[in-house]
Amino acid sequence: MAKHRAQRGNLFVISGPSGTGKGTICKEILNICDLKLSVSMTTRNPREGEQNGRDYFFVTKEQFEENIANGNLLEYANVYGNMYGTPKDAVIRQLERGKNVLLEIDVQGALKVKKAMDEAILIFLLPPSMEILRERLSGRGTDSEEAIERRSQEALNEIRLLGEYDYYVVNDDLTEAVSEVSAIILAEGRKVPDKVKPIIREYE
Amino acid sequence: MAKHRAQRGNLFVISGPSGTGKGTICKEILNICDLKLSVSMTTRNPREGEQNGRDYFFVTKEQFEENIANGNLLEYANVYGNMYGTPKDAVIRQLERGKNVLLEIDVQGALKVKKAMDEAILIFLLPPSMEILRERLSGRGTDSEEAIERRSQEALNEIRLLGEYDYYVVNDDLTEAVSEVSAIILAEGRKVPDKVKPIIREYE
Repeated sequence: MAKHRAQRGNLFVISGPSGTGKGTICKEILNICDLKLSVSMTTRNPREGEQNGRDYFFVTKEQFEENIANGNLLEYANVYGNMYGTPKDAVIRQLERGKNVLLEIDVQGALKVKKAMDEAILIFLLPPSMEILRERLSGRGTDSEEAIERRSQEALNEIRLLGEYDYYVVNDDLTEAVSEVSAIILAEGRKVPDKVKPIIREYE
Repeated sequence: MAKHRAQRGNLFVISGPSGTGKGTICKEILNICDLKLSVSMTTRNPREGEQNGRDYFFVTKEQFEENIANGNLLEYANVYGNMYGTPKDAVIRQLERGKNVLLEIDVQGALKVKKAMDEAILIFLLPPSMEILRERLSGRGTDSEEAIERRSQEALNEIRLLGEYDYYVVNDDLTEAVSEVSAIILAEGRKVPDKVKPIIREYE
């Protein structure tokens, strides 16, 4: 029997303060779980080898603004003069095909996504402690003491928003954190849906 | 850092029609997950080697009735003249110690537990199909054709109650079913609790 897999997929948003290892965890998760990374829309020019629709949806500034006006961007931000955003229609297309979608994003962006799409499942990555977060931020060696202090303060302000999230994972040991995130993804796929009729019908 | 493990534990109720493999899955889960099997209360006499409080809470008929009257039994049933029930106080003691508790029970019992303790997390074990359920029931070799037909009909009636459950797992492949149940147990432990203050405080 097909294990009722025709069901709608889930949107997972992995988020957390800078320095908690979002990127590393998402890379691992994409290797072991059956889900698609959300493709962003951007106004910046494609780089060598980048493909439209795979790496980004490359659009003009006018097209991007149209997407904002249409309410098609779950969130968007201006980064050094280029616009980046998450197109809702592309995410929904995947979900309707029964695919799980993964979105890696900062805390502010995650909360915007939740507001625009209540079904989004928000996972907060926590550092083991503030001391370790500071060490990780210093370890990059690129920031001044002052910058590290500012980023720690930002992290704390973000951690205070934990109550808006669905799950939290402490990234102490990478392997353990990855297995916790993949357990969340697996478990969410086994939730009894609002409409149980299609499942019950398979037994009648 | 202690990974916020001082939190209250969760009560998992594994349930499903006869023949879906509840017992086998629970045995496996107890081997790999950190949880306690709920200890039942019974009026039957202890057998050789059985310990009070470990295998069962052995009580008199009067004590059992007192527990019913006090509302201390999440569910109870009369089995061949002996009473069996799940004592709420013992479950809550474990949860408050931060332990997860596992309860294996039939569908009617599971729904009673949910009614008495809304925080209970109900997992429904489904057979891969009705054909396979019938084969499994016949395979036992103890029941008549008629009895198997009756049990299949009971199973279908129970499956129709799926909407009352939180999760469902199809027991097609045992290893896969066990890993899905253990993912549910792990994921539930990573849910952001209603009270986030104690977690946030660890970072302040």
